[in-house]
Amino acid sequence: MDRRSFLRTSALGGSAAAATALAAPAYAQGKRTLTMVTTWGRGLAGVHDAAQRVADSITTMTDGQLTVDVKAAGELVGAFEVFDAVTAGQADMYHAADYYFTGQHPGYQYFTCAPFGMTSQELANWYYQDGGMELHDELGQIFGLKSFLGGNTGAQAGGWFRKEINGPEDFNGLKFRMPGMGGQALGKLGASIQNLPGSEVYQALASGAIDGTEWIGPWADEKAGFQEITKFYYTAGFHEPGAGLSVATNRDVFESLPMAHQKVIEIAASECHQWNLAQFLANNGAALQRLQAGGVQLMEFPASVWDAMGQAAKETLDEYMDDELFAKIRKSAEASMMSSSGWIQMSEGAYRNQRDRVLGG
Amino acid sequence: MDRRSFLRTSALGGSAAAATALAAPAYAQGKRTLTMVTTWGRGLAGVHDAAQRVADSITTMTDGQLTVDVKAAGELVGAFEVFDAVTAGQADMYHAADYYFTGQHPGYQYFTCAPFGMTSQELANWYYQDGGMELHDELGQIFGLKSFLGGNTGAQAGGWFRKEINGPEDFNGLKFRMPGMGGQALGKLGASIQNLPGSEVYQALASGAIDGTEWIGPWADEKAGFQEITKFYYTAGFHEPGAGLSVATNRDVFESLPMAHQKVIEIAASECHQWNLAQFLANNGAALQRLQAGGVQLMEFPASVWDAMGQAAKETLDEYMDDELFAKIRKSAEASMMSSSGWIQMSEGAYRNQRDRVLGG
Repeated sequence: MDRRSFLRTSALGGSAAAATALAAPAYAQGKRTLTMVTTWGRGLAGVHDAAQRVADSITTMTDGQLTVDVKAAGELVGAFEVFDAVTAGQADMYHAADYYFTGQHPGYQYFTCAPFGMTSQELANWYYQDGGMELHDELGQIFGLKSFLGGNTGAQAGGWFRKEINGPEDFNGLKFRMPGMGGQALGKLGASIQNLPGSEVYQALASGAIDGTEWIGPWADEKAGFQEITKFYYTAGFHEPGAGLSVATNRDVFESLPMAHQKVIEIAASECHQWNLAQFLANNGAALQRLQAGGVQLMEFPASVWDAMGQAAKETLDEYMDDELFAKIRKSAEASMMSSSGWIQMSEGAYRNQRDRVLGG
Repeated sequence: MDRRSFLRTSALGGSAAAATALAAPAYAQGKRTLTMVTTWGRGLAGVHDAAQRVADSITTMTDGQLTVDVKAAGELVGAFEVFDAVTAGQADMYHAADYYFTGQHPGYQYFTCAPFGMTSQELANWYYQDGGMELHDELGQIFGLKSFLGGNTGAQAGGWFRKEINGPEDFNGLKFRMPGMGGQALGKLGASIQNLPGSEVYQALASGAIDGTEWIGPWADEKAGFQEITKFYYTAGFHEPGAGLSVATNRDVFESLPMAHQKVIEIAASECHQWNLAQFLANNGAALQRLQAGGVQLMEFPASVWDAMGQAAKETLDEYMDDELFAKIRKSAEASMMSSSGWIQMSEGAYRNQRDRVLGG
């Protein structure tokens, strides 16, 4: 699949083109309201908070000249319809995890995170310094979007399972919720993968429609209530080692804004990438203790599972390498990760090991 | 030392009080210029960049209504005079590492980082979610400042030495540049500690006035040129596991600004904390390769040195526990670190180990 075939075959190619014909709404008496649709249920821990924070920062920094009105999933359009809604100009911006949109373009995977890919810090290094933001923009131009990272969950848990996983064969026939290419990789181990929005996962797990799910980590998972259904919790996962969330604005709307307001959107989104990551990480520790006190068993995948997942992740990513832009994004991300991860391990990693040894932590 | 004694004995107590009597300068024709003094030489890699980015973000987001004019060290006041200049209203804001100001109050140590303390991510978790920002503000109120984190160097290297360090006794009599309480801890091992601003370190090392120095990490250290003087480079250090930089505004000036502009300063500073950390980490890998190619030897302190440093760091921090606010800040920081570090290791740490094993990296 090349770039042109994405444009040709996607319904979005048409709507993106249509969006360019829309007149930019004028500021009414110096004020303007932008509608932000999201993939998150109202109040969904962390992820909806991130959307709200970006909106509030923009509104406050412009003294309401640019007011952002957040619509939760289903309030204006359904969770997975936000991409189409913004490219078509039905809404002004979305807040989402971009790997929900790998059907529109596989390159979007990298702006959440690739299986066996970058941690949150490595993502930030790439995005803000090594060309990631520019590639996000190149992708956005295809669809009439101006995109920025605007949240991060940190390294996600392996997830909740109704039964123990003792080897890769235990994934065979398992009905599991995992979006994006992590899910596709798990599919290669024989799992039946479902890509449900967060607001529908609890019900699916409770009803037995799925045998297990990944969601985020202790704090958000506890709020979602998965511990009420099953007790096997795998703490480290291969699929989302540092999941970025995105804020994308309809490109015509963005370009119609004064430069000061364009910069306000960019900086508000970027600040929220850090704020949201801190939110997840600061809350995970206490939540983990509560989950354990409630009988949740913390589990680790055995090495044989990690090996199989590594192989499946590579095969999955390789399948998209015919797409020129996907290949460009992947190479850029992997080169940045290779460059920055060594020093991080040698300095902070070595320090952490010594600190834990000396302080006995 | 308690809080009152700091106020009584510090020259700053007087100047901070004087600042409250200054009339807030008005916006001239809707525009206002704030002068930012810094502890950094113009062009000093990473740290001066952070000051400039905060200034530019503020200027651009307000369309120049609030224009920030950056003065490098020595252009308006000397590097270590910036704190006094801003509390006295001689300048509007400073960009600095707050541990330069532990003489004003020992609590400032924690807003850069404590020896054997938090990594950059742990600092962000504490600052943005676990009460760190509020404590920074409590400290700022004593001196008439409104402070925010506004940069981060990542985990700093152990530093450059003219001779190998084989045990804690090798620090005895060593003339070493290390600011803040990390330096005080090293002093307990017999080192003669000097607290020089960055712009003066190269000359001191080249002339033999000091036997060694820590600065930041491969990228900034290479730009500073220390590899031209000595080849022994210790990669992991105990003293600054994730050094935050700060933006502090004269409190009367800050409070005279409209709320939108107050929020612009806060978000611009916070965004730069992440951007600057990514800048250091993205550049360190390639710089390390160049340093090695140029003959620099990468070294690690032996366990006996880490043990001695851990003990010395604890003794140093304990000496300030009579100060009520220092104790409050330390307890808050350590509780947050203990809470967040476990999950980080269990998720991202476990993932990194598996990724390195599976990808053979």
